[in-house]
Amino acid sequence: MSSESEEQQLSKKAAKKEAAKLEKARRRQEAASLASSTSSLSVEEDPHSSNYGDVPLLELKSCSQADAGDWSRAIASMTWTEVGALTQEMKETEVLIRGRVQTIRPVGKNMAFLVVREKGFTVQCLATAQSDGVSRQMVKFVAGLNRESIVDVIGVVSIPDNPIKGATQQEVEIRVCKLYCVNKATPTLPINIEDAARSDAEIEIALQSGVQLPRVNQDTRLNYRVLDIRTPANQGIFRIQCEVSTIFRQFLLSENFVEIHTPKLIAGSSEGGSAVFKLDYKGQPACLAQSPQLHKQMSICGDFGRVFEIGPVFRAEDSYTHRHLCEFTGLDVEMEIKKHYSEVMDIVDRLFVTMFDSLNERCRKELEAVGKQYPFEPLQYKPKTLRLTFEEGVQMLKDSGVEVDPLGDLNTEAERKLGQLVLEKYGTEFYILHRYPLAVRPFYTMPCYDDPLYSNSFDVFIRGEEIISGAQRVHVPDYLAERAQACGIDVNTISTYIDSFRYGAPPHGGFGVGLERVVMLFCALGNIRKTSLFPRDPQRIAP
Amino acid sequence: MSSESEEQQLSKKAAKKEAAKLEKARRRQEAASLASSTSSLSVEEDPHSSNYGDVPLLELKSCSQADAGDWSRAIASMTWTEVGALTQEMKETEVLIRGRVQTIRPVGKNMAFLVVREKGFTVQCLATAQSDGVSRQMVKFVAGLNRESIVDVIGVVSIPDNPIKGATQQEVEIRVCKLYCVNKATPTLPINIEDAARSDAEIEIALQSGVQLPRVNQDTRLNYRVLDIRTPANQGIFRIQCEVSTIFRQFLLSENFVEIHTPKLIAGSSEGGSAVFKLDYKGQPACLAQSPQLHKQMSICGDFGRVFEIGPVFRAEDSYTHRHLCEFTGLDVEMEIKKHYSEVMDIVDRLFVTMFDSLNERCRKELEAVGKQYPFEPLQYKPKTLRLTFEEGVQMLKDSGVEVDPLGDLNTEAERKLGQLVLEKYGTEFYILHRYPLAVRPFYTMPCYDDPLYSNSFDVFIRGEEIISGAQRVHVPDYLAERAQACGIDVNTISTYIDSFRYGAPPHGGFGVGLERVVMLFCALGNIRKTSLFPRDPQRIAP
Repeated sequence: MSSESEEQQLSKKAAKKEAAKLEKARRRQEAASLASSTSSLSVEEDPHSSNYGDVPLLELKSCSQADAGDWSRAIASMTWTEVGALTQEMKETEVLIRGRVQTIRPVGKNMAFLVVREKGFTVQCLATAQSDGVSRQMVKFVAGLNRESIVDVIGVVSIPDNPIKGATQQEVEIRVCKLYCVNKATPTLPINIEDAARSDAEIEIALQSGVQLPRVNQDTRLNYRVLDIRTPANQGIFRIQCEVSTIFRQFLLSENFVEIHTPKLIAGSSEGGSAVFKLDYKGQPACLAQSPQLHKQMSICGDFGRVFEIGPVFRAEDSYTHRHLCEFTGLDVEMEIKKHYSEVMDIVDRLFVTMFDSLNERCRKELEAVGKQYPFEPLQYKPKTLRLTFEEGVQMLKDSGVEVDPLGDLNTEAERKLGQLVLEKYGTEFYILHRYPLAVRPFYTMPCYDDPLYSNSFDVFIRGEEIISGAQRVHVPDYLAERAQACGIDVNTISTYIDSFRYGAPPHGGFGVGLERVVMLFCALGNIRKTSLFPRDPQRIAP
Repeated sequence: MSSESEEQQLSKKAAKKEAAKLEKARRRQEAASLASSTSSLSVEEDPHSSNYGDVPLLELKSCSQADAGDWSRAIASMTWTEVGALTQEMKETEVLIRGRVQTIRPVGKNMAFLVVREKGFTVQCLATAQSDGVSRQMVKFVAGLNRESIVDVIGVVSIPDNPIKGATQQEVEIRVCKLYCVNKATPTLPINIEDAARSDAEIEIALQSGVQLPRVNQDTRLNYRVLDIRTPANQGIFRIQCEVSTIFRQFLLSENFVEIHTPKLIAGSSEGGSAVFKLDYKGQPACLAQSPQLHKQMSICGDFGRVFEIGPVFRAEDSYTHRHLCEFTGLDVEMEIKKHYSEVMDIVDRLFVTMFDSLNERCRKELEAVGKQYPFEPLQYKPKTLRLTFEEGVQMLKDSGVEVDPLGDLNTEAERKLGQLVLEKYGTEFYILHRYPLAVRPFYTMPCYDDPLYSNSFDVFIRGEEIISGAQRVHVPDYLAERAQACGIDVNTISTYIDSFRYGAPPHGGFGVGLERVVMLFCALGNIRKTSLFPRDPQRIAP
């Protein structure tokens, strides 16, 4: 059982209360909406009634053309255009778009503006009665749409007199000819996308003019994640995340790494440590892998030479911080070493420089969308990554007046400080610190040849936070047993692990990095929950 | 607790006994080997002693050149050549290779042949005393190496008089100049790689000549997986597996899908079903996701348009068959549908045809290696995948005298039979069967518009076995609740799922496929344990 602070319990209670309130409001308004739609949206007298309306469920069941209704007939001969792909060159052409109703603004009874959003892009649509085929009833239908409903709009692209401020498509708008509601959203939403998309700066500026704009807190966002991830920043974040794993894979495949999938269900705990999720496996005690360490090393012993894995990693830790999750996506690498553990650092260096370069180049739009809501400075890094020894790092801290244990680990504060010092001296926010004290690394870390107090290991930092941990591993079984014993580990409990090295193990090393942390630190987002699609922390296992 | 048959218990006992026996033998021989190595390998009197020997651990600790020993100095100025990259063009050049000692054959006291293997490729190396720098003691050292030990060989590429039968490199061999043992394997191995790599046909042929060659059974292979995966067939299988996921991703990314990572830890069971692994999540009941169904649909509701995921899927089922695992790698896809569920089938079609084409083209060597041990016919498929309705399939079965329930599911036997019939009639082993009876699909499957007894769903078959399951989903929340109720599901238990569709859900559909099954069926391997790196079934959670 995790011990909850009183504050946490209160915030939970409040969240539950809020959810209940919203639920009640939702049901009430839904009932009202249902009643109104059946009465006022009766369109019998409208000769243009086939140009709009709710698409009946039957038609959405992949109806064939023979049984087609208004909607099916209207879209039959058309192809879809993405909102983000609309351009001025399409002027006067008829297009079909599908998107969500982001905002609706009726102007009298003859006109309604609506902003339609698709994948973070928005376009203004204008329905005007008396224009060809558009009736007053249709304008009323448009004006009565619920926000976030899915609509198909057929209209003509036109160029507005002035750039449109309220949409990402500022140079074009759509004059609506036909409009069908494909699926209705509930009338009251627990989160408005506009509120969720607002930056702190916007709220501050409005406040200075005496306007209190709503601020959506992190917990509400996560409770209604399906709405929250629709904001442009979140659309950007998860596309950047996708790009990170794509580049990770492409780079490693091009370097002859093989992608593997290791089991997450294991007997015993993966690193002999605590904080594992335990379960019953067909009557046997088992747990969830805290890392693919054992199995990726076994894959190296199994002759794959160089391997990587992208998969979930489980930590039952009670860390409720901005940088810990109970489940995250691990990017893991293991490789044969020919001569020196620097070969592993070489891969880290080239992999991440390639990644940062590619992100800056290929995710321009996404980074812009993230920065609009959460402003950040682009990451400063060098074409060739700086490497410092742990001793050099300790000396830099000492020179600046910070005393740390030269054979201990750096705490978060010292890491931050060192990040600052490195930035000042070397002009980079991305660097490798290697030759860590042996005592602060796992038992399977290879000690240094010239000083057994240090080890062939490294951490990598982005913006002053540790992001990657790596090392050369001990590949000689008897020495591995000796090291385990020296670290106070009962060798019998890890015999499977040690035995895997008895059949000939090449020298090897590797590293692991959390996907969510890469995105968080690249974009300087302050909370790892922002970069996990459906985060899991000690207090959250839903949605 | 799983109920074990007596047979299973006996086979387990036998395996344990065997393991104990091997362990005993191993320890005995290890002790003997240690004794002999310290006595007979004394090389004091050899003027060429720096050209061979065991590399001391100290040097393997990423030793710097200043402190270098024989090995470090010998390899210092050289670059490594991969065994698979050796060619006749390299004749008379000196190369450095690292690999495993696969076999050793001493010829008198002055000569030793050894076959060195790297990533499934092998080359013959020849150490001859009296040649430059090679002493009798060195030949003795080479002859005394343990199989599967890691060695660095420096030698000159030469062209043998006759092609070498016992190695994959038949046109070149290496005349050894220097040889160092980087890491020793234990003298007695539980599996010999040659035995594990042998095909059934070879065993049969030998038997006809009165020779009984050892056959390594599946359980022994899995117990010593780290050795087993070194066979050329296994090296091929997991490189093919890597290629399958690479093509899967590349294709989908090129079609504007976004890769997502959904949580494996969930509250409640993922499809409201049985057979889930349960665990305690910080005091809350939780389970492991049986599929990313809920979260991939939520991602569609969250505006990502098209998503895919590659990740572990957990099934606590008691199925001990050739095609079930308790943990496998799911390839999952979910996408918006504009008009018709055939849009999903279009993706399946193009994705898999692209995949098969690429595998045949890019994995020639690997497929050959697999086929050498497990012979199979290349998969027959069409550039445009055949689609049959379930009704058509039932009719084909009926016409051939097989009666099946027209509104039930097909059993494995009927699926096999239909596969045969389809192959005979259409000349393809890969086809889509769609419009399944509604009653045999999950509650969230969209019924057909013209007949509510059928659904907008499909299965895909390879070589007569089901491999993919997909469908259009119900995206209208009230209708979804209605369908759940009709299927006897308590709507309250799945309210989170249903609620995700209340904020505007586009029509959508998707499919899921098991990575291990794709490889198993593409290569016609009879057992899914062959295509899982470290398989998990009801009786196995190790290694």
